[in-house]
Amino acid sequence: MMHRMDDQLWAVVPAGGAGTRLWPLSRAHAPKFLHDLAGSGRTLLQGTYDRLEPLVGERLLVVTGVAHQDAVRGQLDGLPADQVIAEPSPRDSMAAIGLAAAIIERKDPDAVIGSFAADHVIADPDAFRACVAEAAQVARTGVLVTLGIEPDFASIGFGYIKLGDRLDGFATAHAVAEFVEKPDAATAAEYVASGDYRWNAGMFVARASVVLDLLAAEHPDLARDLRTIAAEPAELDQRLAELWPGLTKIAIDHAIAEPAAAAGKVAVVPGSFGWEDIGDFDALDGLLAGAGSGDVRVLGDAAQVIAVDSTGLVVAGTDRTIAVLGLQDVVIVDTGDALLVTTTAHAQQVKSVVDVLKESGRTDLV
Amino acid sequence: MMHRMDDQLWAVVPAGGAGTRLWPLSRAHAPKFLHDLAGSGRTLLQGTYDRLEPLVGERLLVVTGVAHQDAVRGQLDGLPADQVIAEPSPRDSMAAIGLAAAIIERKDPDAVIGSFAADHVIADPDAFRACVAEAAQVARTGVLVTLGIEPDFASIGFGYIKLGDRLDGFATAHAVAEFVEKPDAATAAEYVASGDYRWNAGMFVARASVVLDLLAAEHPDLARDLRTIAAEPAELDQRLAELWPGLTKIAIDHAIAEPAAAAGKVAVVPGSFGWEDIGDFDALDGLLAGAGSGDVRVLGDAAQVIAVDSTGLVVAGTDRTIAVLGLQDVVIVDTGDALLVTTTAHAQQVKSVVDVLKESGRTDLV
Repeated sequence: MMHRMDDQLWAVVPAGGAGTRLWPLSRAHAPKFLHDLAGSGRTLLQGTYDRLEPLVGERLLVVTGVAHQDAVRGQLDGLPADQVIAEPSPRDSMAAIGLAAAIIERKDPDAVIGSFAADHVIADPDAFRACVAEAAQVARTGVLVTLGIEPDFASIGFGYIKLGDRLDGFATAHAVAEFVEKPDAATAAEYVASGDYRWNAGMFVARASVVLDLLAAEHPDLARDLRTIAAEPAELDQRLAELWPGLTKIAIDHAIAEPAAAAGKVAVVPGSFGWEDIGDFDALDGLLAGAGSGDVRVLGDAAQVIAVDSTGLVVAGTDRTIAVLGLQDVVIVDTGDALLVTTTAHAQQVKSVVDVLKESGRTDLV
Repeated sequence: MMHRMDDQLWAVVPAGGAGTRLWPLSRAHAPKFLHDLAGSGRTLLQGTYDRLEPLVGERLLVVTGVAHQDAVRGQLDGLPADQVIAEPSPRDSMAAIGLAAAIIERKDPDAVIGSFAADHVIADPDAFRACVAEAAQVARTGVLVTLGIEPDFASIGFGYIKLGDRLDGFATAHAVAEFVEKPDAATAAEYVASGDYRWNAGMFVARASVVLDLLAAEHPDLARDLRTIAAEPAELDQRLAELWPGLTKIAIDHAIAEPAAAAGKVAVVPGSFGWEDIGDFDALDGLLAGAGSGDVRVLGDAAQVIAVDSTGLVVAGTDRTIAVLGLQDVVIVDTGDALLVTTTAHAQQVKSVVDVLKESGRTDLV
């Protein structure tokens, strides 16, 4: 299935977050979106670009931290330099996406934007683009549109979207009845069994002006400051320096998506395209199923890994030989200055190692 | 307790064996006796020298492979160069110890030699020296003397020595009733419960001439060739090159100790001095009890290791930080070109990794 390029559709790619549960692969100075976690030969950021390019061409704007702007420009070297925006400091997702919306609104007041994080993996990009294309059509009616992921299992790691009524005139879109926070296991199981809930992957599509007008209704100062920053391209850096530190820190979900859903102004396009948020090594292990040496999955050169009576994940990040003998569900992450050995069951607790490193002053390693 | 230096006592230190169960710490080009496995600041070879020096002064002769002679000389730089003998090829323990006996017999026909492997660890060197001093006295009566280690537990990893009658005129020496091979678990338990058995640590003390005469009775060609090689110091290298490749490969236990025991010509001096044969990482883990970060023992700089909810052994052989999270009885051995991750329960199977490396042509790593 091919989707025509939509010349009023812009992609916004927030590229932030340290990914401390993926330490020592992901670091503050080299967060996960800069790595080829999928073993595809392209980093997660490049994969995000590759997936969106058939829909938006070069209408893609990355918002990242000042520390990462050079790495982002290096990885996306075809992108015009002014389409990588460096936030002076982290001010949460509403400021990041809202700034992108304001910059794009100035270029094209009728533009539709879709916001897609730089660190997701999607197995079926064509199905993803079909979903985004429909979302863009729905967005032109003036609503905020989210993508709702068909649940693979009763995850307690994601928020959910409750489907409302089908929207007339569109293939699969529904109104959003409600956004719900991460549920407990029993509630998650009920959600999935009901068929009425989708995972909230934090992907939004709307006219740039709709994003900012919804924001103006809830947080008028924030909407005004973002439009002021974007109003004069030649003064962008100066206005960022002046206004950015004072912006309200709030997530886009709380800032506009939840209030708009309560007001009946949010739609959802359900999708099933093999979405993965590689939050920890357990998720990475699942993603790499099939790549490796016997029952051990390998990110890197599998020829470097000797596995005997073992299962799990090895990240071969140096040129050393790695032998694993008699361990089940082990996670070994070998990098030049740090080695992690844990298990998939402890994947969520890797952050505790990073905490120990910070407490002991080893900020060079985090 | 001090023991006078015995100026007719020579120490013979066979320094061989790759220690493949300690890979990747121990390698063919750097076997375990060249490493500081005890974390004492001295290698096992140096520890062996340190332990013997108060008894023998510089009357110590190392027999090692040609590949290791430079490393041995480097580690024992006070030793005269002609006291490090390089075997052209491995011909088992009888040839190695017999050559040393022949060289020492030529220097001093009345000399007593004691043979002590280069890769053992002894917690109480003074008790060890007391035992050797008594063994040397017993050896002067013309018998072959072995040291018998008080068993700590019913090991199935060692051969045993059955005590015979006490020998008149000595503090603790017994005749040897019998040498027995490594027993099964039930037999080992019986041996230990009886109180009549000691571990055979492969340590022998005898006049050099007694060693060679016992050998001449069993393997006359071997005894003759060894004496021929040693007869002319100036021709040692040439005679080694000519005769060594044709020597019978046999262990000293089978060649002389067992036949002599059957003939009533072997004595044993029982000892309890914290002897450890560090055969694998489980043994190394036991040896290092107390050294480390929390419940993880560390060989190397413990400050490099972050252990959370974990037990086991980390060998920090590079300057990298090593984090271990949520693993019990884990063994992590970090070296410059190879990393091993296993468990103490799999310590005996580390050799299988070395086999895989050999089969796949990675002889550079073994």
